[in-house]
Amino acid sequence: MIIAILGGTGPEGSGLGLRWAAAEHTIIIGSRLAEKGQGVAKELKTISPESDISGTDNLSAAHEADVVVLAVPYGAQQPTLAHVKEALTGKLVITVVAPVGKPAARVYRLPSGLSAAEEAREQLGENARIVAAFQNISAHHLADIDYHLDCDVLICGDSKDDKQQVISLCEDAGLRGINAGALQNASVVEGLTSLLIGINIRHRVKAAGIRITGI
Amino acid sequence: MIIAILGGTGPEGSGLGLRWAAAEHTIIIGSRLAEKGQGVAKELKTISPESDISGTDNLSAAHEADVVVLAVPYGAQQPTLAHVKEALTGKLVITVVAPVGKPAARVYRLPSGLSAAEEAREQLGENARIVAAFQNISAHHLADIDYHLDCDVLICGDSKDDKQQVISLCEDAGLRGINAGALQNASVVEGLTSLLIGINIRHRVKAAGIRITGI
Repeated sequence: MIIAILGGTGPEGSGLGLRWAAAEHTIIIGSRLAEKGQGVAKELKTISPESDISGTDNLSAAHEADVVVLAVPYGAQQPTLAHVKEALTGKLVITVVAPVGKPAARVYRLPSGLSAAEEAREQLGENARIVAAFQNISAHHLADIDYHLDCDVLICGDSKDDKQQVISLCEDAGLRGINAGALQNASVVEGLTSLLIGINIRHRVKAAGIRITGI
Repeated sequence: MIIAILGGTGPEGSGLGLRWAAAEHTIIIGSRLAEKGQGVAKELKTISPESDISGTDNLSAAHEADVVVLAVPYGAQQPTLAHVKEALTGKLVITVVAPVGKPAARVYRLPSGLSAAEEAREQLGENARIVAAFQNISAHHLADIDYHLDCDVLICGDSKDDKQQVISLCEDAGLRGINAGALQNASVVEGLTSLLIGINIRHRVKAAGIRITGI
């Protein structure tokens, strides 16, 4: 699969990219500036020379991909989607975006009353294939592709088939994906990121995560 | 400690009551009707004859207690608090309330935009000592006091001392309590209940829970 990671120059996006590249996917690191995307792709190739990773601007990345991952900070979500919207038609869009407030350890309620994932769908239109996932995965050990990540991925979306595809991508990244219901539920998963940041701070750790038990 | 459990006739409240009674606390099961509270207390005494468990109406229970646990359905939160408000002054109030929508597997956003826990504080006034906890603990195995519950309790509140007291009560119930930040964060923990209900349904289990990893 060809996977574009918009905002893939950040630690979360590039870590996921490395893991998916190791699972034989073709990765395109998108950035606002093509040179920045190319630069990070080059660095990732140094870590993992056999991998199929390239870099370019967000719009070109989205055009070339089968699956598009939105891994920008919340503040960049709206302009990034406006920029690449035409390239997303019919494609699975996975949003990793988790708005964090100030202080980051407090859940940030968006003025819209929605989750960032639902705001993305409103912007892209009802036919957009949006799935929210990976917001709670600490970037800390992500780039160390042999590191066993002790956490689950909660997956929210309104299409069972699309969520199933994301569950497979979780497996490819060494993670367990769990169907967590409708896209609306993404507000809880996005909020959990703030709780985990607070737990990291209080416990002086870098990668608190969650596991679902009893299943 | 004398612990009143308002709405303690339900499975969540009575399960917690049994576990705390086994840890030598005095438990008062509160109900809208004193006879109902007494009836459930009698049943719990049959399960655990040595325990100090009695039952009465919610207001009397709150008056007699050091710590008051609010374990009513969300729809009964406002009237119950209005009824017992005078008895809560200066006391630690632990709210277990998690609003669930229809269908229950979808997160329910309260029209106020707040969590149920923050609505409770608004109703009781800024000096109320409210801590939100136990919303994600399935009642299914709670009454089986020897059963090891494989899940954590996320604890939200604005007083560190009060949260510490709830962490101790978690230990008394055989659970690990984790400081999850400000009371505002309770909206995430309350919402998680809906996600866990959905996971229970999809996996055909009765007690999905969460664990915090990496700490």
